[in-house]
Amino acid sequence: MPKNPSTSTSEPSAVAQTGAKESRRGLSRRLLLTSAGAGTAGLAVGALAHAGLAGRSHAATVVDTVEFYGAHQAGITTAAQDRMHTAAFDVTSDDREALISMLRSWTDAIAAMTQGQQVGADDPAAGSYDAPPSDTGEAADLSAANLSVTIGFGRSLFIGNHGKARFGLDGKLPDALIELPHFSGDQIEEGRSDGDIVVQACADDPQVAVHAIRNLSRLGFGTVRVRWSQTGFGRTSKTTRAQQTPRNLFGFKDGTANLLADNKELLDQHVWVGKDSTDQPWMAGGSYMVTRRIRMHVETWDRSALREQENVVGRVKSTGAPLSGGDEFSEPDFAMAGSAGPVIPADSHVAVVHPSQHDGVQMLRRGFNYVDGSDGLGRLDAGLFFIAFVIDARTHYVPLQEAMSSKDAMSEYLRHTSSGLYAILPGISQGQYLGQQLFDS
Amino acid sequence: MPKNPSTSTSEPSAVAQTGAKESRRGLSRRLLLTSAGAGTAGLAVGALAHAGLAGRSHAATVVDTVEFYGAHQAGITTAAQDRMHTAAFDVTSDDREALISMLRSWTDAIAAMTQGQQVGADDPAAGSYDAPPSDTGEAADLSAANLSVTIGFGRSLFIGNHGKARFGLDGKLPDALIELPHFSGDQIEEGRSDGDIVVQACADDPQVAVHAIRNLSRLGFGTVRVRWSQTGFGRTSKTTRAQQTPRNLFGFKDGTANLLADNKELLDQHVWVGKDSTDQPWMAGGSYMVTRRIRMHVETWDRSALREQENVVGRVKSTGAPLSGGDEFSEPDFAMAGSAGPVIPADSHVAVVHPSQHDGVQMLRRGFNYVDGSDGLGRLDAGLFFIAFVIDARTHYVPLQEAMSSKDAMSEYLRHTSSGLYAILPGISQGQYLGQQLFDS
Repeated sequence: MPKNPSTSTSEPSAVAQTGAKESRRGLSRRLLLTSAGAGTAGLAVGALAHAGLAGRSHAATVVDTVEFYGAHQAGITTAAQDRMHTAAFDVTSDDREALISMLRSWTDAIAAMTQGQQVGADDPAAGSYDAPPSDTGEAADLSAANLSVTIGFGRSLFIGNHGKARFGLDGKLPDALIELPHFSGDQIEEGRSDGDIVVQACADDPQVAVHAIRNLSRLGFGTVRVRWSQTGFGRTSKTTRAQQTPRNLFGFKDGTANLLADNKELLDQHVWVGKDSTDQPWMAGGSYMVTRRIRMHVETWDRSALREQENVVGRVKSTGAPLSGGDEFSEPDFAMAGSAGPVIPADSHVAVVHPSQHDGVQMLRRGFNYVDGSDGLGRLDAGLFFIAFVIDARTHYVPLQEAMSSKDAMSEYLRHTSSGLYAILPGISQGQYLGQQLFDS
Repeated sequence: MPKNPSTSTSEPSAVAQTGAKESRRGLSRRLLLTSAGAGTAGLAVGALAHAGLAGRSHAATVVDTVEFYGAHQAGITTAAQDRMHTAAFDVTSDDREALISMLRSWTDAIAAMTQGQQVGADDPAAGSYDAPPSDTGEAADLSAANLSVTIGFGRSLFIGNHGKARFGLDGKLPDALIELPHFSGDQIEEGRSDGDIVVQACADDPQVAVHAIRNLSRLGFGTVRVRWSQTGFGRTSKTTRAQQTPRNLFGFKDGTANLLADNKELLDQHVWVGKDSTDQPWMAGGSYMVTRRIRMHVETWDRSALREQENVVGRVKSTGAPLSGGDEFSEPDFAMAGSAGPVIPADSHVAVVHPSQHDGVQMLRRGFNYVDGSDGLGRLDAGLFFIAFVIDARTHYVPLQEAMSSKDAMSEYLRHTSSGLYAILPGISQGQYLGQQLFDS
């Protein structure tokens, strides 16, 4: 199952007239920061660069903002951005009102940052020399870079160590927010797993994603603390991005068979929690996010023959086609016979995880590659930070992972080092705060 | 001094006709991998995307390759790419010929990868099903993304633990390849420091940089092992890159006063080792690379008042102008008096590191921001992976770092956690291998 990154297709609207962004809401990041100074036309930079290349005489700028408000949070069906910074926080306070207050400030900050604006631009003290700046500043001058921020709650937010409800959330824990079981071969590090609140920030610019996590962390000071934090990279050069399925660190195309983000019927069936599919009405419009940090033993992989690699994956390395033939998007023919058993081995990754083996369940995968230095044993600490959004992990993740960990030949080259399951909050409309459906319920 | 990233100005040539790259040398990465399959016109993807935007009828493609051969290695004065993966290796073999043989294979691989080609495309066994692929494959379909790979040797390559020369390199250690001293406040982690060989890979696509390090590591199997590895990010969205000085994780513009990469006279004075400036003729055309992983205490910084932040840096946060006035590129006026001492405090970063305080020495800084998860104490492990290229660290780095660590108010917010100094090899011409000047000398 570790497929990366998703091949969602709904790109944000691409081109509009200069100034569209500025009109949205008050000061842009750049305008705020340059109000004391140079005040050059920063927002038009992209426009001018493109105009230069294109020989256009009228400046147009790329709109790279993702809508924040809506029935669902952004960052799920949003076209996968290039970079990810995901962090989990533990709430250090027992105070329900403090938690709600933080969620309100987070909501305001996310609404601003995703539109390319400074955090706290509305704050009268924002420019005071005697106060810390309301925005940490490292994303000033940068565009929104398609930033999306997606918030979810872990099981531990609802139930404390001794089984006692926290924050007055008695009876609000969804049945589906289970503790994920131990899977064969797991080597889970607790310090990289779980957590009360997860925040997935994705953007085409790493500094913008990092800026988002950092500013939420800053706003949460005294209420939450970072439990773990992971950066990742996905897509590729802009020059080759639109046409290609990305390759994972095993060198194979990955994400070919992913659930497409514009297929509403399949999303309702496999991703979005509906009123009728949950015991907790507050979850309607939400989803569940599975995170698994999957170390890939690239050194071992790199020393295995091409034949072995293709048999493990069940696809041709160069083209991504199933071993049964066709092209990248052809359906695998698991019945096709070869000289020694099926052409696509039964223990190949594609055979083990194919929806036909799992009652047709699908997930929306949205993982990112990671490289976290080396491991002290002369090997790179690299792999996939697996992220999937599903309607219910009990039906849509656990059986697949059980099959993979016990049957998939690829497991030999993988090690799962973290695990997380989070209830992704429903989207909100203007005036609401993230989590309001829960706390008002 | 930690300034990041450099503002070098010599961009690689920008636009040329489709096919320019393919003509260079044999098979391109994409063509090799698709030779068994789809065979679509991968190299034209960027061209088509741009043409679509521009409404051009003739396809033109962005050439994003950096020249490998030359008097100096690439990756020093090369315009700073967006992403970095730097690794240090220790040589596990005692065999001089094995080391040279590896350097030859590295040279071939770097020559190929920097031109967007597969490693080992010339190898007759490259496509064999019974051998490991000669290229790990994850950069297939990707362009060269301005990849540069820069190789340097650490002091430990020349001298073993007991002071004995290694690899027959008696008398070849340059005087300038010192052990860096301990600086006040240093908390150096040995496992992230030093190493026999350093490899700096930079590209606009993280997967391309990672691919380079990984393939060199694979080629070096049995001869070297990874000692440490660090990823980083620099620049910013393409839409805002050309015009802006990037901001560091303190939110300040950083690199304004950096040595410009197109100033030949200053480079010869401060960066390139010349025949007359070294005791080791084989170093002519080389340089010295200083690496320091500088953890930034962003949480503490974020809680300090804007006034404190600006006094520590000596510049206006929004514009980057010195506190003495003007704009980002104005010279600081350290004599200008304020109500309580100089307007630019004497212990501000800009005052402590200014060339006027250091006999006019300058360095070519080329650092990258990093975020390596969190530290287990609820804080982000984030900061600057400082890289500087200098003609001699004894004159061009040590005095500045001594001043910073003892006088600079910014030091309170920083912690140096790694340290490295490497002799950067001179460039080579076709037919030579990296390091040949040393081993032939």
